[in-house]
Amino acid sequence: MVMDIKSHTHHISQQYNLELDEIKTKLSEMGGLAQRQVNDAIQALIDADAETAERVVREDDHVNDMELDIDEDCVRILARRQPAASDLRLVIAVTKAITDLERVGDEASKIARQAIALSGDGSTPRGYVEVRHIGGHVSRMLSDALDAFARLDIDLALRVVETDNTVDMEYNSAMREMLTFMMEDPRNISRALNIMWSLRALERIGDHARNLAQYVVYLVKGEDVRHESYDEIQEQIQDDNE
Amino acid sequence: MVMDIKSHTHHISQQYNLELDEIKTKLSEMGGLAQRQVNDAIQALIDADAETAERVVREDDHVNDMELDIDEDCVRILARRQPAASDLRLVIAVTKAITDLERVGDEASKIARQAIALSGDGSTPRGYVEVRHIGGHVSRMLSDALDAFARLDIDLALRVVETDNTVDMEYNSAMREMLTFMMEDPRNISRALNIMWSLRALERIGDHARNLAQYVVYLVKGEDVRHESYDEIQEQIQDDNE
Repeated sequence: MVMDIKSHTHHISQQYNLELDEIKTKLSEMGGLAQRQVNDAIQALIDADAETAERVVREDDHVNDMELDIDEDCVRILARRQPAASDLRLVIAVTKAITDLERVGDEASKIARQAIALSGDGSTPRGYVEVRHIGGHVSRMLSDALDAFARLDIDLALRVVETDNTVDMEYNSAMREMLTFMMEDPRNISRALNIMWSLRALERIGDHARNLAQYVVYLVKGEDVRHESYDEIQEQIQDDNE
Repeated sequence: MVMDIKSHTHHISQQYNLELDEIKTKLSEMGGLAQRQVNDAIQALIDADAETAERVVREDDHVNDMELDIDEDCVRILARRQPAASDLRLVIAVTKAITDLERVGDEASKIARQAIALSGDGSTPRGYVEVRHIGGHVSRMLSDALDAFARLDIDLALRVVETDNTVDMEYNSAMREMLTFMMEDPRNISRALNIMWSLRALERIGDHARNLAQYVVYLVKGEDVRHESYDEIQEQIQDDNE
């Protein structure tokens, strides 16, 4: 009888571990999809590829569905398992992370819509270098943030936060460039606006990757570092290590 | 002895109720502050009032602090009280709602920054009618969504979702108007962009109010209706009532 109970307890706990693993796995999958959407949207914009852009818009529903699915899993774990300490932090961090990934999907859709609007022109317009450059940054940030989450790698997470500062600077400079482009000739206005909206979406994706990275700090350190600068976060982590 | 235990249990449960009430109260407070920020930012833009705009930017920290504070309360309740059923839904809905309110604060800051940029000009430029009009809509949406949350009023929540469709239409029309304004004279470009960014921020605030309203449906019905249209949500609620 004792063995029965023991093996039962063991089973429950194993099942619980599986459930925790599963939300982590699903988060990675959702992150992978969101990142593919971002990459495809950027490529569609640069290649004037309306077909790919339309697929990105269509597949946004898929990202949304994953959010709802993972959210349900998290609520179920909270209700049934009543997680404590680091398990609770994991569930909370996943709940927040999927909101960011869902928004990343939205922003990818916005870029794809601009790509559709731009695809009729065919020429190589101004601003594509900037889109490609900033796009490369934020795509890397997203993949690093997801890796940092999966491996609880706080150094990698910090690097993501640092890169976000670079992206913000490059974004501001690209926006000024687009303003100049508009002012040179009013015929450029509509096209420049399409690029500006795309740049804005990329900058937002960078912010979401930064949020993801900050949840990693929360997971590892138990400290909420949203709204803190890179320097503040680094200081806090060093204080903890002393 | 029995009485002791009873009174102790009673005390715990009463304390627990107080904690749940407290996060609701704090959410209302945070919502009130976020809404004041939005109203002040709109007014600052229309009145070319840089001083008010700067105060809005400064006070965004206050909104951020409230998010962290309420978030901590929610985590504490999850860890200590292990809420179930509707209590769990409340805690989860509050956790999500504060993320939206924090973003509302961010968007108010963005409008305030545009107001600062525009305040040097002094004249009554094109686009202010649209800002005032759409601003009025989203401010009302926000206050209705917060009321709906406090009173669990699903009809009011639905009205917020419905209004968001109107806002989106008016936003698109205002953006076209600004594009025309730009094309008329390149000297209008910079100013028109300031208005466009402000309109965009208002449209986003409308989206967040819509999210808040959808959490009310989740709280009352236990159903997640994010990513569903007004018609779909209404249908679902009617199905439930049959």
